[in-house]
Order: sequence, then structure tokens, then C-alpha cells
Amino acid sequence: MSKNLHVAIVGATGAVGVELIKLLEKRHFPVGKLTLLASARSAGKLMPFAGDNVCVEELTEASFAGVDVAMFSAGGGISKQFAPVAVKAGAVVVDNSSAFRMDADVPLVVPEINGADIKRHKGIIANPNCTTAITLIALHPLHIEFRVKRIIASSYQAVSGTGAQAIEELRAQVAAIVGGQPVVKSVYPHQIAFNVLPHVDSFLETGYTKEEMKMQNEGRRIMHHPTFKASVTCVRVPVYRAHSVAVSAEFEKPVSLDRAREVLAKAPGLDVVDDPVGNLYPLPLHCAEKDNCEVGRLRYDCALDNGLAFWVSGDQLLKGAALNAIQIAEAL
Amino acid sequence: MSKNLHVAIVGATGAVGVELIKLLEKRHFPVGKLTLLASARSAGKLMPFAGDNVCVEELTEASFAGVDVAMFSAGGGISKQFAPVAVKAGAVVVDNSSAFRMDADVPLVVPEINGADIKRHKGIIANPNCTTAITLIALHPLHIEFRVKRIIASSYQAVSGTGAQAIEELRAQVAAIVGGQPVVKSVYPHQIAFNVLPHVDSFLETGYTKEEMKMQNEGRRIMHHPTFKASVTCVRVPVYRAHSVAVSAEFEKPVSLDRAREVLAKAPGLDVVDDPVGNLYPLPLHCAEKDNCEVGRLRYDCALDNGLAFWVSGDQLLKGAALNAIQIAEAL
Repeated sequence: MSKNLHVAIVGATGAVGVELIKLLEKRHFPVGKLTLLASARSAGKLMPFAGDNVCVEELTEASFAGVDVAMFSAGGGISKQFAPVAVKAGAVVVDNSSAFRMDADVPLVVPEINGADIKRHKGIIANPNCTTAITLIALHPLHIEFRVKRIIASSYQAVSGTGAQAIEELRAQVAAIVGGQPVVKSVYPHQIAFNVLPHVDSFLETGYTKEEMKMQNEGRRIMHHPTFKASVTCVRVPVYRAHSVAVSAEFEKPVSLDRAREVLAKAPGLDVVDDPVGNLYPLPLHCAEKDNCEVGRLRYDCALDNGLAFWVSGDQLLKGAALNAIQIAEAL
Repeated sequence: MSKNLHVAIVGATGAVGVELIKLLEKRHFPVGKLTLLASARSAGKLMPFAGDNVCVEELTEASFAGVDVAMFSAGGGISKQFAPVAVKAGAVVVDNSSAFRMDADVPLVVPEINGADIKRHKGIIANPNCTTAITLIALHPLHIEFRVKRIIASSYQAVSGTGAQAIEELRAQVAAIVGGQPVVKSVYPHQIAFNVLPHVDSFLETGYTKEEMKMQNEGRRIMHHPTFKASVTCVRVPVYRAHSVAVSAEFEKPVSLDRAREVLAKAPGLDVVDDPVGNLYPLPLHCAEKDNCEVGRLRYDCALDNGLAFWVSGDQLLKGAALNAIQIAEAL
């Protein structure tokens, strides 16, 4: 590809879109032209980029003329409708929605894990689910060493994973409670302030949510491990930014804590923060706006054979979304 | 025992002490005389009981003269020092601390599960850890039906589990953040507002915390199941009241979701709240100040053989502490 690319961001005004714009600048992505696309409602809004203001345009079928890379983060429906349009117009699409993640023709990529899959693309590359990406950044190096069979995991997911309105809903609910006013809810079915909701994404007939099954479904594709099993409970917590996941993992080979620490210390995209007696362990508050994920609380699992338990935190707007998407675009 | 008992509460001004006083009144416990005991700092404070005010006295070795039932909730150190004194003075002690829970001479009791163990007491009966009690209220009926082998669990624990100062710390931190003031922390090593801490109780050499190992250690005693295994990650969340636990449980016998629902619907101390498509599942906010625990999100576990996954919430000041203690005293 040429040095200066025409980049389009679909969903530019959303929580992930804002991070994408910041990262293009911060990482000196070779942007020749930046086209910001959103719904008609947001058209005309000015967004800062590289010392300038870029005007948001309404997304239409004509939006992708001359675009080299289109980064989609506006929900599965928009991706399904417009990603093929962008590809037809000659763009490579990096899609942050779940629309194409299970499509055999679309590589699903965490660059640190399966970056080589990018070259198999036929116009679209999918960005994985945020909780899955953050967990795999710590799990995959252990898998390479010990061969993971299955995990049981519980998540502690920040409201920014839902989007900008959810951040505002938590803020408004907390302000209302502090001020003695009634709590209003619209984004979540229940109050999120001072509460936790075992409900992320919609429910399947099995009783799992779609979000919970992404760990197994996407994990199998990303790790090239078709028999990987994952039982997950996804829970929304009143944290603004950065997800955390408690993981118990069972491996085929005998595990060694020392070796696990070595492997994790060398893993890309990951910092080991693990001195519990010194009160050092990954915290969502410390991972907010940080590129690398953090892993800690590493220990032999006391209920699983060849088992390790650990705790991983990461900014789901970055590694879980925008950063991963930019890394894919960089690899292109 | 006689109709009207002399009841003493040690730690009367703490979060659990306050609940004990309320429950004695609410449940018409046959109180002839109520003695409220606390540290010198709290002596002289008036606490409402049955339309009257009771003056808090300083705890000393002479405090237990004539006391029939002494309920301790002032930490392990106080229990170790004063519970034997109370027993010597003729009282039966119901101890909410961890001081005697692993003592073979002391029954560790959840009345719905092993109430029959109460009669083996030699003066002291121990009340279990709150997260353990809430989890077992849902797990034990399934164990009776399917024989549990092991569980992997993650907790979402409210700040009131730490005590009254922690409730105040969360409130003050939230008010500071809303008001744009700096956050002060003293109870927890890190900010708890808009954060989650994978750190409850102190760390063992294995990397687990003491709190995390209580599920296995206390679960074995309460369920009379010496090979029960539990790998737990305990996490403090910014919720004021009521703990929640995500549980994946593996059983010896094949499990049936229908049978599991029947068994849970009949279980004492438990309400099944499980219509996820209707947005009904246990929430800590709904369990606050409620006697019964709630279980929901019941599903076949997709990573364990003969496995069930579920989510349980319960007010840890009630079922996890004061209510369980009163139920033990009632059973006496």
C-alpha cells in the first residue's frame, strides 16, 4: 500500500470511534485523508484530528470512494450492510462488530496471537470481542506452553463496553443517588450504579448470553484450537473503563508456575503485575487508557488438574477494540 | 432453655451487630435482657431495641455474668479472647468470626444445611464466611441431588462485608469524584469507587486469599464432604450491600436442568429468580435487606462434564452473617 492512506472510520462519534481517531494520531498511522462517518444525527459534528477539525459525514453507499482502509465500529447491522459496499469500492475493512467474526472467509485476528491470518483476508478482517481479546492475550502464551483444554471464567465488564450512553447513564445514576434524586435507567434494564448485572448481550436458548459464548467460539478461531472449551459468566460492573476477567484454566501438560511467569513476562501486549502481598495486582482503574493488558493473581488452581488461575485486566476500548483494529491496519 | 433469655451482642455497633439487634426484634427472639458490648470507644452509645434505647457497654471479662446466648461479631481476635470467657460464664456463643470455624470441637453451621450439627456444640457454634454461606444455600440442594465434586467460582462482594467504615469509604469516594475532589482511601489499599479489587482478606503463600479458601475449607465441614474442591477468586466491587457469586459446578451424577430447578425451588432460604429473557436474574440491589438468597442464570455448563453454572446473590449481612447467627440461636 502507498505511504499515505485514505482512512475512513464508520461510527466515528462512538466510544470506540473516538479512540480510533486518537490512536491514528498517537501511533503516526500514515493517514493521507481521514473520512469520519456516522449516522445523519451526528453529521456535521467536528472531531479533532492532528491539530485540525474533521467534519463528520453521513454514512451512505457512496461514502467509500477512494478509501484504502475502512474501520467499522457502529454495530453489526451497519457492518453487514456497508462493509461489502466498502470492499466493492476497493477498501480493506477492519470490522469491530460481531457481524463477520464467525465467517470462515473472514480472518478473526489478535495480531499478537494470529497476525499471520491477516493475509488470508478477502477484503474484511474481523476484530474480536473485547473480553475475549483481553483474556486471550494472557491465555494464549500459556496455551503455547501447556496446551489449554478448557477455561472457566467470570468477567467484570466496564460500562464503556456498551458505549458512550452507558458511560453517561452510570454517571447520571451516581449523581442522582448522591443528590438524593430518583434513578433513571434507559441503557440497562436495571440500575448499574452500586449494582452488578449478570447480563451482557442477549440470551441464547442454552441460558448463556451471546457475549459469554464468544470466548469459546472466537477463542477457537483465534488460537486455531477447535476443541477449546470456555464456560463464561459475563457481568457488567459499575466501572467506567477497562474490563477484568477471573480465569481458571486447565491444560493438557503439567504446569509450572515459574515457567508460566516467564512465558507471561515475555508475552507481547501484556504486563505482569503480580505482587499480591505488596497489594499489586491488575486493576481496571490502572488499565484505563493503557495499551497493554495486565495479568496477575497467578496461582496453581486448586480444583483443576494441570490448572492455573489468574486475573487479567485491560482497556476494552483499546486492546479490546480500537488498538487491536489499528494494529491490524498497521499489519496490512 | 427458658422462655426469656439474656442475650449479649459483642460488636454491637458494627455493621453485623446492628443487623443482629434488628433481627432479634423482627423475629421476636425471646429476649429477657439485651446486653450490648463493644470497645471502650463505643461505650455509652445508645442503640434502639424494641421501642427502647440500650446503652452500649465496654466489653470486659466480667461482661458475661448471667448471659445465656452471646453473639460475637467483632473480629477473630476478640472472639479468641472472649468467647471462652463467655462459655465459662455459662453462655452459649454463636461466633461470626473465623476464629473457631476450623476447630473440630466447634460446629460450623448453616441451619438449612447442617442444623443437626448444632447439638454437638461444647459452648461455641461458628457462623460461616458470608460468601461461603450464600453459595452453599444454592449449591447444597444440588449436591444432595447430584453429588458435587468441585466448583470454580468468582465473587462480587459488597463493601459492607468489610464493615461500616468501608461503606463510608465508598460513599465518600463517590461524593469526592462527583464533586471533583481528590479521592481518599484508608480501608482498602486502592480506590474502590468505579473499580474492582481482586483482593478480599489476606494472601496465603499459594497465591489464594484466606477468603478464597474458605469456600473449600468451610464447605467441606458444612456439607460433610471432605473431598469437595473449590477454586475461587474473591473480588470486592463497588456495591453497598449483598454479595453475588458466579459458580460453575461439576457433579458425580448426570445433571438435569429440570430436576435442578425443582430442587432449587424447594430449597429453604432460597428463591429462584431465573427468567433471563424477561431480564429477571438475581441482583445484589434486589437482595439487599432480604432474608432469602436468590439463584438464577441456571444452565448446563459448557466446559464441565455433569456441570451446572449458576449465579447466586444474597445479603451477606443477613444470610451471610446476622440472620444465620440468629437462626442458629433459634435452633438452640
